[in-house]
Amino acid sequence: MNKDWWKWGNPKAYEHVNNYPKLKQICIDRFGMDPKEDFHPPHEFNVPVVSEEVQQFILNAFKAIPTTQIDFSKDTRLTGALGKSYHDVIRIFKDHNIQVPDVVLQPRDHDDVQAIITAADQHNIAIVPIGGQTNVVGALTMEKDLNRKVAYLDLSLMSKLLSIDKENLLATFQAGVFGPHLEDQLKPYGLTLGHFPQSFEFSTLGGWVVTRSAGQESTYYGKIEDMVVSLKVATPKGTIQTPSFDKDAEGINLTSTFIGSEGLLGTVTEVTVKLHKKPVRSKWVLALFPDFESGSNCLKEVIQNDIYPSVCRLSDGPETYFYSQLKPEKQGVAATLKKKVEEIYLNFKNIEEPNIMMLRFEEVLSSKENEMAHVQKIITQHKGALIPSSLAKNWEATRFHTPYLRDTMMEHRIFIDTMETVVSWDKVMTMHAAVTKALQACEAFHKEKGIIMSHISHIYTHGACMYFILICPMNVGQEVEQWEAIKKTVSDAIVHSGGSISHHHSIGKDHQSYYLAHQDKLGLQLLKAMKQQVDPNDILNPGKLFDV
Amino acid sequence: MNKDWWKWGNPKAYEHVNNYPKLKQICIDRFGMDPKEDFHPPHEFNVPVVSEEVQQFILNAFKAIPTTQIDFSKDTRLTGALGKSYHDVIRIFKDHNIQVPDVVLQPRDHDDVQAIITAADQHNIAIVPIGGQTNVVGALTMEKDLNRKVAYLDLSLMSKLLSIDKENLLATFQAGVFGPHLEDQLKPYGLTLGHFPQSFEFSTLGGWVVTRSAGQESTYYGKIEDMVVSLKVATPKGTIQTPSFDKDAEGINLTSTFIGSEGLLGTVTEVTVKLHKKPVRSKWVLALFPDFESGSNCLKEVIQNDIYPSVCRLSDGPETYFYSQLKPEKQGVAATLKKKVEEIYLNFKNIEEPNIMMLRFEEVLSSKENEMAHVQKIITQHKGALIPSSLAKNWEATRFHTPYLRDTMMEHRIFIDTMETVVSWDKVMTMHAAVTKALQACEAFHKEKGIIMSHISHIYTHGACMYFILICPMNVGQEVEQWEAIKKTVSDAIVHSGGSISHHHSIGKDHQSYYLAHQDKLGLQLLKAMKQQVDPNDILNPGKLFDV
Repeated sequence: MNKDWWKWGNPKAYEHVNNYPKLKQICIDRFGMDPKEDFHPPHEFNVPVVSEEVQQFILNAFKAIPTTQIDFSKDTRLTGALGKSYHDVIRIFKDHNIQVPDVVLQPRDHDDVQAIITAADQHNIAIVPIGGQTNVVGALTMEKDLNRKVAYLDLSLMSKLLSIDKENLLATFQAGVFGPHLEDQLKPYGLTLGHFPQSFEFSTLGGWVVTRSAGQESTYYGKIEDMVVSLKVATPKGTIQTPSFDKDAEGINLTSTFIGSEGLLGTVTEVTVKLHKKPVRSKWVLALFPDFESGSNCLKEVIQNDIYPSVCRLSDGPETYFYSQLKPEKQGVAATLKKKVEEIYLNFKNIEEPNIMMLRFEEVLSSKENEMAHVQKIITQHKGALIPSSLAKNWEATRFHTPYLRDTMMEHRIFIDTMETVVSWDKVMTMHAAVTKALQACEAFHKEKGIIMSHISHIYTHGACMYFILICPMNVGQEVEQWEAIKKTVSDAIVHSGGSISHHHSIGKDHQSYYLAHQDKLGLQLLKAMKQQVDPNDILNPGKLFDV
Repeated sequence: MNKDWWKWGNPKAYEHVNNYPKLKQICIDRFGMDPKEDFHPPHEFNVPVVSEEVQQFILNAFKAIPTTQIDFSKDTRLTGALGKSYHDVIRIFKDHNIQVPDVVLQPRDHDDVQAIITAADQHNIAIVPIGGQTNVVGALTMEKDLNRKVAYLDLSLMSKLLSIDKENLLATFQAGVFGPHLEDQLKPYGLTLGHFPQSFEFSTLGGWVVTRSAGQESTYYGKIEDMVVSLKVATPKGTIQTPSFDKDAEGINLTSTFIGSEGLLGTVTEVTVKLHKKPVRSKWVLALFPDFESGSNCLKEVIQNDIYPSVCRLSDGPETYFYSQLKPEKQGVAATLKKKVEEIYLNFKNIEEPNIMMLRFEEVLSSKENEMAHVQKIITQHKGALIPSSLAKNWEATRFHTPYLRDTMMEHRIFIDTMETVVSWDKVMTMHAAVTKALQACEAFHKEKGIIMSHISHIYTHGACMYFILICPMNVGQEVEQWEAIKKTVSDAIVHSGGSISHHHSIGKDHQSYYLAHQDKLGLQLLKAMKQQVDPNDILNPGKLFDV
């Protein structure tokens, strides 16, 4: 097993804190710590061997699929058991409370999955579907005391483009296709799905569907629920193919019922999506605002005037500053931001704590110059100062890279986690203040020592996605408890401020208590009725979302 | 009872065939008939009186609501019993197979509705929700042999704007609000919902939601399912309030489950919708195409280049010609089309059978000139000829008026019905040909004598709504059978050509067999499981969509 198996993404893209001297200096100055790379996962993990008897039971149950698709090895079972959250990784570092499955199954197509689920139902084996394993809210975590065998269903080998309809801009993919492979298969046709979450490189279409994912360009292309036309789903009672029509008026359309279903109502195996022509060019509008509120009001005015950028980000002061401190020795975001922005614009505009806003516009055929001119006017009206759009090139080059930093920071015993929500425009500032206040009173976060950064990353006429990044010294020996305390502090503040417990990370185990606390009681009964219909033995991802 | 109770909309807006001499001439020339206004509904209808005993039973059941909201009168029960389809009206003319309810209830708010439904469940009384009663596919029709009392629930007095959130562009309305009243209540805020179906003046928000309605500007504003954030629903098991978040990632969102539910899972009483700023101006692009296929390809290219007009109509040759024959004596569409178009453009461009296309663009803040210039280029590339946009003013003035013509034509014993579907772009022409061929072989339609007109009225990247208008002589004495034969002919042709059985008219009784024929078996079990959960006694609109 590769020693970096627990890290984000591609091991070759690994980052080191030493490459970020300013970041290191912040830790020394602000945290009073001299970060050293002295925290690592164990070489060996406490993974129980699957007994010969259990192997025989499982092989017998799944005799309908080739044995080459059935993996009992310790490594596969361990690496398949967790997502990529701080909570997941800290448990790996501590070898703490990691529940590994008894087997990992690797189907190749829908029929494989249907055969597996039918067999699992007959033999009372729990099924947990996994794809790119990038979930950060415990979607892969199983409860410990499950009184049966557990099979993880690894869909990552199901990556085919099954059909493409160039005339109607539709495509059907197997659900396990990763982002880049999906886009690569569309490229010859000049088409795109337009879904680019930060996890893009390592997450799958099926994962996006069952977690109601949002891409970085969702303001233009929509969230995944806006892209899906129909789904093929394997359940213990057989296969469901949801209606092939979109925008019809044929009663209740069940497609939406499976979006966000987190594997409870079946395993999504095939997904038909709407496509778009690839834009011929993208254009950026960048600006600095003297405060977050002005920037937020600007974004609200943009979207409420029916102007739809694709990428849309507004970083608050701490985040803008933090990013300006990254890689100052290279021609990265920082260097340019420092030279071009701090020196030229900040003094000139009297902006002491800049909040950077980046908006990207896609041009398929029509020019967006007119929209952009209006946006520039709105920016000025909200005290914003335009800055060169060339600065955005760095963001584009590194848009999927930020998660890599997490690993090096953890190895240096620095706590870092992210949380996000969708909240109405009127509550953006009160939520920002409430989360800040709660954390500054939170012992586990080292109160005011901790760094709180925030940005808006997706906008709607009715509100925005607020994203928080939290950094503080790790509490050695109390790592899991520290995470639990901080997670609760932020989640409570988000929910009390009127935000959803998630905008795109999903529920998983980490958000489940919040999810259940505000579910409509009778609405929950409707969900349970569906669950009981397709999965009476509760073999599909048991313990997630709601109990049956 | 007003003698015109069965007619569409406002009796003062009544039309007479005599006002359309060219239309009359078509009937004489093509149908070989001299249309006379000699067909009328009876003065008296065979509506059974509700016995004293039944009245007492119902009054006792619904004692929780004021008796002023409980109406047993023959007139109310008769007028509440039907929608506005040709099938409905022909049954009125013949006093044939009209099932009237035992009572019509008129709740004022959600609590009234909840009390009614709870009581109905306890006393085994069936509930059929009605709003503006404009449905044209039998959504109000009850089966005859229902072994219990039937209450129609008239929501049309529930029309309040309950709350408006100007900052987040959200509003909550009672579900019975009619289109104009809804927009009037938004007007002071400069906001619009953007939902303008042809039935706009006489249909309700709740009706739009449970039938998955589409407005004439849906290409820009979306269908109703794109506008709804959350719903309040009354069921036999209590009230469901669906999640208040939109674009979150909190598991399965039940809101979409009630959209298109046609009253089966509860009665929608309150609806929270997303709003838009009212555009400051609208601009038109109009063109004529030498054939329908060129126009259809043009529309496909417009939308697939991410250009979103609001109104979007392409009439085929017969429809363009037919409308040019309407009101030639006035400054209507016809006069202008005749003078400006036929004389100037048709000869010039050698277009013998013009197909008119109308696209409207909304300008909220940004100019749409750039999009419009590209659209004009696309039009030219597809053999289209631009015509003056002023012609569209007539369409705007009469956009909700066409249904009125139906009544006068029926009184003159002319058959007229409309059917619609959503179909992928590649099937538009084959469907057009298949429907035409099927009708030209249909005895009930008088084969080639019948007039078939068609237009595209809503477009998507993946396809379009095709709308068919059918006119032929009425078969005296066989009026219902004639309708049944024509309806079956067209529905079969639509479905065999790959279209949905409805794009915005919904299922009702008229489309039910087609709906059931292609429902996924297991998917249907999921719907039934939800139904049994909230309505185990099947009191909510029994017999619609699927049986329990």
